[in-house]
Amino acid sequence: MNRQQLIEQIKIKKSFLCIGLDADLSRIPEYLLELDDPIFEFNKQIIDATKDLCVAYKPNTAFYESLGVSGFISLQKTLDYIPKNIFTIADAKRGDIGNTSKMYAKAFFENMNFDSITVAPYMGKDSVTPFLYYKNKWVILLALTSNEGGKDFQFIESNNKALYKHVIETSSKWSTSENMMYVVGATRAESLLEIRKIIPEHFLLVPGLGSQGGSLSEVSKYGINKDCGLLVNSSRSIIYASKDKDFAYMARKRAFVIQKEMYTELIRANVL
Amino acid sequence: MNRQQLIEQIKIKKSFLCIGLDADLSRIPEYLLELDDPIFEFNKQIIDATKDLCVAYKPNTAFYESLGVSGFISLQKTLDYIPKNIFTIADAKRGDIGNTSKMYAKAFFENMNFDSITVAPYMGKDSVTPFLYYKNKWVILLALTSNEGGKDFQFIESNNKALYKHVIETSSKWSTSENMMYVVGATRAESLLEIRKIIPEHFLLVPGLGSQGGSLSEVSKYGINKDCGLLVNSSRSIIYASKDKDFAYMARKRAFVIQKEMYTELIRANVL
Repeated sequence: MNRQQLIEQIKIKKSFLCIGLDADLSRIPEYLLELDDPIFEFNKQIIDATKDLCVAYKPNTAFYESLGVSGFISLQKTLDYIPKNIFTIADAKRGDIGNTSKMYAKAFFENMNFDSITVAPYMGKDSVTPFLYYKNKWVILLALTSNEGGKDFQFIESNNKALYKHVIETSSKWSTSENMMYVVGATRAESLLEIRKIIPEHFLLVPGLGSQGGSLSEVSKYGINKDCGLLVNSSRSIIYASKDKDFAYMARKRAFVIQKEMYTELIRANVL
Repeated sequence: MNRQQLIEQIKIKKSFLCIGLDADLSRIPEYLLELDDPIFEFNKQIIDATKDLCVAYKPNTAFYESLGVSGFISLQKTLDYIPKNIFTIADAKRGDIGNTSKMYAKAFFENMNFDSITVAPYMGKDSVTPFLYYKNKWVILLALTSNEGGKDFQFIESNNKALYKHVIETSSKWSTSENMMYVVGATRAESLLEIRKIIPEHFLLVPGLGSQGGSLSEVSKYGINKDCGLLVNSSRSIIYASKDKDFAYMARKRAFVIQKEMYTELIRANVL
């Protein structure tokens, strides 16, 4: 999916919601465990219930890898089930020397056909560029993460500039806003103002809403741009809204509340 | 495997060689492609030919992931085939928020039973500690990588100290040299002197020998400690020493040359 198509979807759906498909056998409704592929069944129902309310789905690969071969199959089935007008993110946080990142790009873009992958910046340019050779595929680079440990290194200052800003400044020259986005945690909303000075155009993937405590209005206030420029993710607070048979309905209800707020923010920012 | 056992193996084998099992369908001998599981067959022959010369094997997960489900199966079979007295490294460069790193730890330590995993430091403490809860399992944290892009961020200075040193100083307080190692590229041998001032005890995993151009004598000179404290990796220059049916024999020959050099270095450093 290219940038223009993504922006169109945001305008059609009046939403910039991304839903994290982090299905965990210990947290999904128990009755699903009797089925052949509980993880896929769970995701399928979540997708059916929310696909008109979100513009992106983001499976975190760790949840699937922890299940071995069956997890891998569930992930592929999930990906194939996601409607083609919805942007897909492999939340994999990969990154290795060029020769190896190329193999990851093959895995996620050729074999599995994700639209995008999250990548860790520590190993620099040649660990990132192999993902950028694919047409209409995206790198979403970690900049400022939502977790407590995000503070350990990302705020280290050099020339009065935090590391995460160095990462953004340097890496934004490796390509354009047509195939690069950045991860900026919702728990660091105040930093969005600074980040927008460096990259006014780029899309930002913003995790950390809900369970991690980020605020949608703060994120929108500081991060939204003329094309929206945001994908705000929620995982656990949506997909685990209920542990009962009504989990998909409850997930929809939660997603609907967020989508309504997003509609308001899009109008406020003159995107719609 | 614990630290003492690893040191014993180094002394028994007179080697601190790690072999990277980065099997790639486009590079292994053609005749293997007719077999059911060419990747496993390749690895099996490499292991058979080199297991007395090395103390660690390091499959890079990207090569297996790029093959989908079959790659996953080949990886598990390879891991199960490695003799128990050889240290195993999942070169996966994972790292995510705590909740998610926990799932990766489950995947690599519980399901697959690797001794260790390489982890990227960018997301800080809670992305690393979930891997440290497992007894006799190790985190090998990226510090100074061997690739060109390693220079992009790892040398950014704050308080006259490069980022990679901040990473080592901070993270070495999260645990001990009993279950943490660091990746330091052989192409940055001169930095080992500085690194040994911060972490005299820790084992270092040193990739970049061979194809990437690092030198074993330089690495040993600056990096070896009283327990050896080094695992020096070579991947392509060993496993692709030949593209013919003699590939395993040629891999052994190459590994043998390195092991002999290592023997000399171990004596020189009074480890043996």
